[in-house]
Amino acid sequence: MNAEILCFGSEILHGDIVNSNAQYISKKMAEIGINVYYHSVVGDNHNRMEEAFRLAFERVDIVICTGGLGPTQDDITKEILAKYHQVKMVYDEDSYSHVKQIYQRLKKDMPESNIRQAYFPEGSIVLHNAFGTANGCLLEKNGKTAVLLPGPPKEVMPMFEELVIPYLMKYSDGVIVGRKYIVTGLGESTTEAMILDLIENQTNPTIATFAGNGRVVVRVTAKAKSKSEAEGLIIPVEIELLKRLEGYIYRSETIDVGEHAAKMLLNHKLTIAVAESCTGGLVSAKLINFPGISSSFLQGFITYSNQSKVDTLGV
Amino acid sequence: MNAEILCFGSEILHGDIVNSNAQYISKKMAEIGINVYYHSVVGDNHNRMEEAFRLAFERVDIVICTGGLGPTQDDITKEILAKYHQVKMVYDEDSYSHVKQIYQRLKKDMPESNIRQAYFPEGSIVLHNAFGTANGCLLEKNGKTAVLLPGPPKEVMPMFEELVIPYLMKYSDGVIVGRKYIVTGLGESTTEAMILDLIENQTNPTIATFAGNGRVVVRVTAKAKSKSEAEGLIIPVEIELLKRLEGYIYRSETIDVGEHAAKMLLNHKLTIAVAESCTGGLVSAKLINFPGISSSFLQGFITYSNQSKVDTLGV
Repeated sequence: MNAEILCFGSEILHGDIVNSNAQYISKKMAEIGINVYYHSVVGDNHNRMEEAFRLAFERVDIVICTGGLGPTQDDITKEILAKYHQVKMVYDEDSYSHVKQIYQRLKKDMPESNIRQAYFPEGSIVLHNAFGTANGCLLEKNGKTAVLLPGPPKEVMPMFEELVIPYLMKYSDGVIVGRKYIVTGLGESTTEAMILDLIENQTNPTIATFAGNGRVVVRVTAKAKSKSEAEGLIIPVEIELLKRLEGYIYRSETIDVGEHAAKMLLNHKLTIAVAESCTGGLVSAKLINFPGISSSFLQGFITYSNQSKVDTLGV
Repeated sequence: MNAEILCFGSEILHGDIVNSNAQYISKKMAEIGINVYYHSVVGDNHNRMEEAFRLAFERVDIVICTGGLGPTQDDITKEILAKYHQVKMVYDEDSYSHVKQIYQRLKKDMPESNIRQAYFPEGSIVLHNAFGTANGCLLEKNGKTAVLLPGPPKEVMPMFEELVIPYLMKYSDGVIVGRKYIVTGLGESTTEAMILDLIENQTNPTIATFAGNGRVVVRVTAKAKSKSEAEGLIIPVEIELLKRLEGYIYRSETIDVGEHAAKMLLNHKLTIAVAESCTGGLVSAKLINFPGISSSFLQGFITYSNQSKVDTLGV
């Protein structure tokens, strides 16, 4: 089973927002072992949206869409899917109540256009949106699965996690486990040359290198029936990698330096205070982002002006 | 002239990184008035990459690619483009020296595989990469333009800004100017209902609403020969919008709250100190991100532990 993530929204094509939904969904799909082969973004344009659906259904089995479920005129994703499958739009009473209730809670009149949020392509399973008016839906037809989700990431994430993942598990023929290793002090090509035979001779796990932000990342990805089985496949490769690249490589559960540092602080029961200037709080924020850091992180100082450096830090 | 941004990299499809290159390039393309109609991402797979090129050349005039210019085996973007256009790969002495010099500076031997970074599809203009070994290239053929850039955003940005934008200006038939207005206290459908006649009757500028993070954004986008002409088209629409949505709307050069706050501080010549707890420095970082803020931002305190709140803030 292969998937495409198809995001609708001119705001992405204008560069107003980054496509964080595609990243989030990709990560989750990897965890349940469904390959994401494509990301696509098209604007709120009838013809291009229809064409994008056609193309996606031609090349993959599962199409996960975000955007275009709002109440406004350019929100036409459900209608386009219905047109593609030649099914009609049907009314869903629960979705109507859902929208109505949100407006009542806000003590506002529901605009007439919101009634569109209660219609779905016939045959759909409606996906409840706990954080907005736009319910999503899931439609299986002609051997293809379409999942329609709203645009805002805060709505997409809980819906995907709680409703879509459990549904898609039936298509998961295992899990994909990926581990990352950070290489410092060696270029990408040198790194590759030192492990080329491993890269060439492996199919599961696969080994890939990529470079960015001044370091090289080696990614080892295994697919298996269970997480422990996948990890078992990775272990001998990891041992070999650590041996070959000794002194240059460390294993990282994540490529996020803040998380890595936070884990080390907590493991060693160390406390920390941070003083920053130009980074303006980002170092502290990276650490504080990690759950449980309160026992380690005491305080941060952002001494941006020269005077504050003298007064607060005594430098 | 329409464009597609085509990004190669399994790391994007795995959700390891967000596709920030697509956002950056989209924003820059909008500034020079070239419509971006599609974003696509495919993995480092020969067949899918070739198919992606074919599709992109079928549907747009300009294809901007990122990724796959490294020295390793899965870096095959240039080779795939050459194959698509049926041209051979030719050696570029300057690019060879470029890579060689980087290794000399690092006092390391250049691995043999890096020689691949000196080959480009015949007929290409080579694009110098000041921040990495991977030079890019630009190839015009059969009325279509392909621009190949490396993957790391820090390399993409200066190359795009300094080399690609000046080249693509010849295809710009004007500029696109977008302005954003933030609506608070009204839902998206209510907002739309209040300005529906404007949305329906405008073609240039276009007016669109989108929702996210608890607020509604109205985007007005004008296309014209010059920036001032485009702004002239926006002004009457802006006046009408501000009148219709009075009390709920403010104009925002950006949808970034930090930038907005920083501008207001600087305009009013105010100074600020920030004390944060759970946000862990993000409020300060948002402000400090804005150029010139040093005359306003004095200091930040991240009082995360209770003791630090007492000691530093006296609360």
